[in-house]
Formats: sequence, structure tokens, C-alpha cells
Amino acid sequence: MAALSTCPPVNRTSVQEAHKRIEKYIHRTPTVTCETLNRIASTPESQRCPTTGPNVAAEPAPHTNGVQGDASKFKANPKVRLFFKCENQQKIGAFKARGAFHALGRLIEEEGIENVRQKGVTTHSSGNHAQALALAAKTHNVPAHIVMPTISTPSKIAGTKSHGANVIFSGSTSDEREAVVADVIKKTGATLVPPYDHPDIILGQGTQALELEQQAADLIAADSTLSIPGKKGLDAVIAPIGGGGMLSGICAALHGTGIKVFGAEPNFEGANDAEIGLHQGKRVEKVKTLTIADGLRTPVGEIPWSIITDKSKLAGIYSVDEEQIKAALRLAMERAKLFIEPSAAVPLAVMLYNEDFRRLVEREAGPEGWNVGIILSGGNTTVDAIAKMFAAPPKVEERANATRGAQGEKVAENVAG
Amino acid sequence: MAALSTCPPVNRTSVQEAHKRIEKYIHRTPTVTCETLNRIASTPESQRCPTTGPNVAAEPAPHTNGVQGDASKFKANPKVRLFFKCENQQKIGAFKARGAFHALGRLIEEEGIENVRQKGVTTHSSGNHAQALALAAKTHNVPAHIVMPTISTPSKIAGTKSHGANVIFSGSTSDEREAVVADVIKKTGATLVPPYDHPDIILGQGTQALELEQQAADLIAADSTLSIPGKKGLDAVIAPIGGGGMLSGICAALHGTGIKVFGAEPNFEGANDAEIGLHQGKRVEKVKTLTIADGLRTPVGEIPWSIITDKSKLAGIYSVDEEQIKAALRLAMERAKLFIEPSAAVPLAVMLYNEDFRRLVEREAGPEGWNVGIILSGGNTTVDAIAKMFAAPPKVEERANATRGAQGEKVAENVAG
Repeated sequence: MAALSTCPPVNRTSVQEAHKRIEKYIHRTPTVTCETLNRIASTPESQRCPTTGPNVAAEPAPHTNGVQGDASKFKANPKVRLFFKCENQQKIGAFKARGAFHALGRLIEEEGIENVRQKGVTTHSSGNHAQALALAAKTHNVPAHIVMPTISTPSKIAGTKSHGANVIFSGSTSDEREAVVADVIKKTGATLVPPYDHPDIILGQGTQALELEQQAADLIAADSTLSIPGKKGLDAVIAPIGGGGMLSGICAALHGTGIKVFGAEPNFEGANDAEIGLHQGKRVEKVKTLTIADGLRTPVGEIPWSIITDKSKLAGIYSVDEEQIKAALRLAMERAKLFIEPSAAVPLAVMLYNEDFRRLVEREAGPEGWNVGIILSGGNTTVDAIAKMFAAPPKVEERANATRGAQGEKVAENVAG
Repeated sequence: MAALSTCPPVNRTSVQEAHKRIEKYIHRTPTVTCETLNRIASTPESQRCPTTGPNVAAEPAPHTNGVQGDASKFKANPKVRLFFKCENQQKIGAFKARGAFHALGRLIEEEGIENVRQKGVTTHSSGNHAQALALAAKTHNVPAHIVMPTISTPSKIAGTKSHGANVIFSGSTSDEREAVVADVIKKTGATLVPPYDHPDIILGQGTQALELEQQAADLIAADSTLSIPGKKGLDAVIAPIGGGGMLSGICAALHGTGIKVFGAEPNFEGANDAEIGLHQGKRVEKVKTLTIADGLRTPVGEIPWSIITDKSKLAGIYSVDEEQIKAALRLAMERAKLFIEPSAAVPLAVMLYNEDFRRLVEREAGPEGWNVGIILSGGNTTVDAIAKMFAAPPKVEERANATRGAQGEKVAENVAG
């Protein structure tokens, strides 16, 4: 990785320069709108009809706290127009291509292509950064050694191998991954390209915000149903946060534009480490969670943390539970026809189901509402994973049987998944 | 419906006029490309690696006829660049919005809005035409009575009702549907807007081909990796055929341009009625199939038949089996990140798995290959339907249990689905 001392400052100008550096290697992914999702997001949760999301409407969401009957008056009623940045259609199926191409490009500028080719590069990743670095390395004809947890989605492992990378397996915690990476560096001399905790990665990931900002403005200019008098662009962007490379990059990219940036996190088994850290004023350094949002299982890194704790850059972090993520995933697929991975559904889940966030939007945006950019960070999942996630739960009498024998175990596993 | 005698001729000029009539009501849906799918489609089926589609690679497709080992030399090796027309992102989630808006617009032009509002409109449809007419009727403030088979996808029924239409249920065969429609007309005086067998519907559906033709040319002009010397646009388009409204509309739209038009059909339980009809020189008038491509279960209509039997308009029809449709559906989702319904996967399945078609492309296109437009006709399915379709089959010991008790029945149903 390029030495920290030589890195450009993490600000909007540097993100614009990063964009020039990588734009010939990446896709300018589309930004799309969906009237149905605008309508659902602009309706109090308690008033949504059953057709707006079976999982959601069939039973009260956990945060209703048992309020029944006239609950609607307690539900927020924000008005929003959503702009989905389709990084699921980015190269390798996720935004991570941006950071990897930028980091490797900068490393080559600093050290020279021959040196980089001789030493190779390495990293650890649950999947998307792995594929991204493998692709960037292949593009520049540089050897790549990628450490992946054995529990990574098979399609991500296959994708990484398909770009010619040498894949080495490890356990799933950060400690376990880093130990294997250290071993690889010792043996090969490869340069570590970390998944998020480096300015060059952060600047690369931030580039999507520049495109989204412009694309949303173009859509608003072209479509009278999206335009509100005096409003020519986005009011806010919601992005997922795992290690924080993307969120801190977006914070840097949009700083000074007046567009508010929010983070979105799963809260299963403490995956909302960034939210907890902000509340307690101290970064949470270790996380062990198996949230379905598998791209967001890592704790926020030190450099991203130093950026997102700046209140002029990040407006807040909000979290959602596993059922809310699944409900948002369902709506993105069934309503907007966008095939995304669970991690990518987390910002939409915050927009649709986090009452604290929805109250904030209602309060700050007022009757004219907000134009909200929603980062769809990736689409690297499989129909098998979707099938497992949404398999019908067994009926009551089947549940009773499910304690007996091999078939029972299979059913129980589907319910948990 | 506008009287047949007053309808414009079904040709390219009429399709262009239809496009002007409807463009303010419909989405100009995107046309997208996918490098991975280009690579898979341009590789002989027997040489595709396991990462290019688990269902496909794990076991030989049915049409390999047991040829093993050196089978690759018997497999076609066409070169293609694919252009996906995303009508899954059309209003109501399918291309049918085009025909419905055009037909209703023409009816209003002919009879006057007050007359049309007084009588209302009616139709029968497995789902997408139902939603399309409901939306067009709501837009013009016209009452709509929609006859839907009880076995329609729940999301399609919900979608139709959500546009304020009066939904009446029927059996699933054409005869059963038509009997209920006749009853509705008798009771209400509503005008029938048939799903496909009318020039105004055909002209409306054809409009997507004009957009695809232009969008593909724009993409080719902008991206050097897509451009082949001397080739500035599409060579061919593959579209699904059920009732034939879309396919015949596309034939009309592209007639005289030099772009070849092909039809794609499921062959389960005789669903390939158009293919069979072309071979025997006589339209097949009745079909009873439960192919997973539920939008393609109807026999081709009389007017579409009169168009697709013109060899200067249609270059051929090719069919695929249920497993091939599922494999194509999987690839569209996992690789191109496009959420589509099974009917929409049929043209891609023909491109990837129909050896007769692939041999034709290899022979006619030669080494420079073809630019092929693939119509993704709709995206109206649910994650539950996907879950059922791709649920893991039970293990052998579970299969044995599956004959006993309620739980067994549940598992068996998933396998069949």
C-alpha cells in the first residue's frame, strides 16, 4: 500500500482526483428511482397495506413495542424521494472495485509497476474486497494473494478465483484473518492492500457519491414528478457501514455540499459497533457477529473512525434488525427489480423501518420532504442463499417433527437462516 | 377495443406512431450489458466452468444426449455481445404497460373519453396484462374489470388490485377465462381489451424494439469493447412468445432494418405451441401447460400468427426446458444482478442452451459474432417464488422420510416446484 505519509488528504478534492484516476477502469453505475418504494417510504409503517411487504405487514415490527390499534399516530410520516445508486452493477458486483483500483493505482504510481509486480499484493476480505483486488491486480498483471474466511459465500470465493488470484482460507474473525495475512506477507513479500483502513481505499470508495450527486440532479432536472420547487439535488445519502471505508469516503466526498450523510448498520449480535461507538464516544475495536449482512460484520477502522466522528461530516448512524434487512431486501427485489445482497439492503431498511431516523427526516424535511440517495453497495449473493433466507417456515406440526432426525435438522436450519 | 377496421397497419411506421402516443406514460427502460454473460454465452456449453452456473455445470443438460468426455467438439461456439432490454423495470414491472396504454389511448381517440368511462374496460390475464390495463385505466379514470386465474402469482393479483381494478377470478385455461370475461361484458357493457390478439396491443408492445435498437447503437458507439469494425447496431433480437403480441410487434418494428427477430418459448407440456405450429404449418389453438414461465402459457393468437409466419419478419422460434429456464434465471440474477420473472429468462435460456440456435449463430455470424438484443420481459415474481424454485432438494435419507406425514409432503412440494 502507498505509504500513509504520501497519501493525499481525505477531502472532496482528493475524491474528485481519485475519480479521474479510476473512471476508465470502473462502471459509472446507474442511479434509479422507484415510485412504489417512494410511496412505501412516505407512508407511516402502520398504515402500509399488505401488498407493500408481506413480512412487514403481517406482524408488527419489533420496535412497535406492543402498541396496537391506534398505533399509526405514533409512527413517523416522512416524505422522501429515493435515488438508488446501483453499485450492485459495479464491476465484481460491488463498490469495492473503486477502492481497489484506486489503491493499486496509487501504489503503482509510488513504487513503479515492476516493483509491484515482483512483490505482489495481498489482503483479507469476506468477499467483495477480495474480488475487487483480484480484478485490479489482474488488470495490471500483478500477483494477488487473497485471504478469505472459509464461511465466505461460495460465489464470492469462485469470483475471486476466477480473476486468477491465489485464495488462502482463514477463520472468520478479524484476528484470525490478519494472522494468515501476516503469514502470507512473510512468505511472499506482498504488499498489504487493506479492505478499508487506508486513505487511498477511502478516497476510491467515496467516488460513487460524486456520481450519485450528479445523477440524482440529472434525474430531478428531467422528471417533473421528482422535482420540488427550489430543490435541485439530494438532501441526504444513506450508506452502509462495516469497516467504514465507504461511509468515510462518502463523508469526504460530500463535505461542504450541504448533503447530509448517514450511516446504516445491522444491529444483530452487536454488529452496530459504529453506532455504539458514537454513543459511548469510543471506537469499538472488536465485533463477532453473524448478521446476514455479511459485508458489515467488521468493526469500523481507525481512519474511517477519525472521519465519521466529525459531526460536520457525518449526521448520524442508525441500525436495523435482521427481519428489517430481509424485508428491505424483499422490497428492493420485488418492487424495484434490483438483485442485491443483504448488506446492500441495510440503508433501505433504515429508511423504511428505523423510527428514530424516520422521525428525524419528518422533522427536518417538513412537508416538501427530502431527496435521499440510497447506496446499494453490492449484489454478490446467490439464488440459493435467497432461497434459504426466504424458505417458508415449517407449520406447527412440522416444527414438532423437526426435533427428530436428519430432516428435522434441515428444517430447523432453514428457519434460523 | 378500437374496431379492427379503423386500426393502423401493423408495420414499423405504425409502431413509431404508437411510441409517440405512449412515451409520456411509460418508462424508457434501460438497456444494459454484462461482460460475464457475454463470456458465458460465447463459450461452448461443455467448456463452461462451474462458476458460470451451478445448475448447468454440475450435470449435463438434457440435450447433450449422454455425450460425455470429448463432448466439447459437438458443442456450438457462437460469439455474441448481449444487450438486455430491462422491461422488468417498466411500469407495473413488465412490457405489457406499453400495449395497454396504447390500446386504451386508441380506444379513447375513437370513442371519446366519456363513452369509455361510462362503459369501462375488461380483460383476462395471468397477471402482467391485468396490472397494465388496471394502471392505464386508472391513469385515464376509466373503470376496469380484470379476470385473473385463481392460480396467478399473489403479487400480480395484489398489484392489479392496488391500481383500483375490480378483480374477478376464473380457472386457468383460455376457455375458462374467456367465459368469465363474456359474463363481465354482459353485465357491465365493458369493452374487451384483449391481452395480445389485437393490432393496437401489438403496435404498443413493439415500441420496446425501437428503444432497444437505439440504445444498443448508443452503447456500441460509447464503449470500444462492444464495437466491432463496421458493426454499429444489433444483428438480432430474441423475445419470448406466449400469445405473440410482443413478438409480432417486435417483428413489425424491426422489419426492413436487417435485424433478425427470433422467438423463444418454453417446451414444457407443449408450451412451445408456436414452434410446433411453425413446423406443422398450422397454428396450435389450445395449450394446457404449467410451465414455470407463467406468462407464456397461452397459445399464439390469430393476428400475431399472421405476422410471425411471414419469413421476412420472423427468423425462427426456439424452445428450452424448465431446467434451462431456471439456469438462465439464476445467471441473470447472480451475474447481471437483474431481478426477472421466469418468462423473462426464456430468451437468455435459448441463447445459452439451445444448441440449434447456437449453431445457427455460429454459422451465420462467423468469427466477428453478433450483437444480440435480449428482451427481459418482466420482473413480477417474489422472493418466496424464487425460494420455492431454488430450494435445495432433500438428501436421500430425507427423501425416504418424505413419503410419511405432513412434513414429507411439504418437502416433496418444494422439490416439484
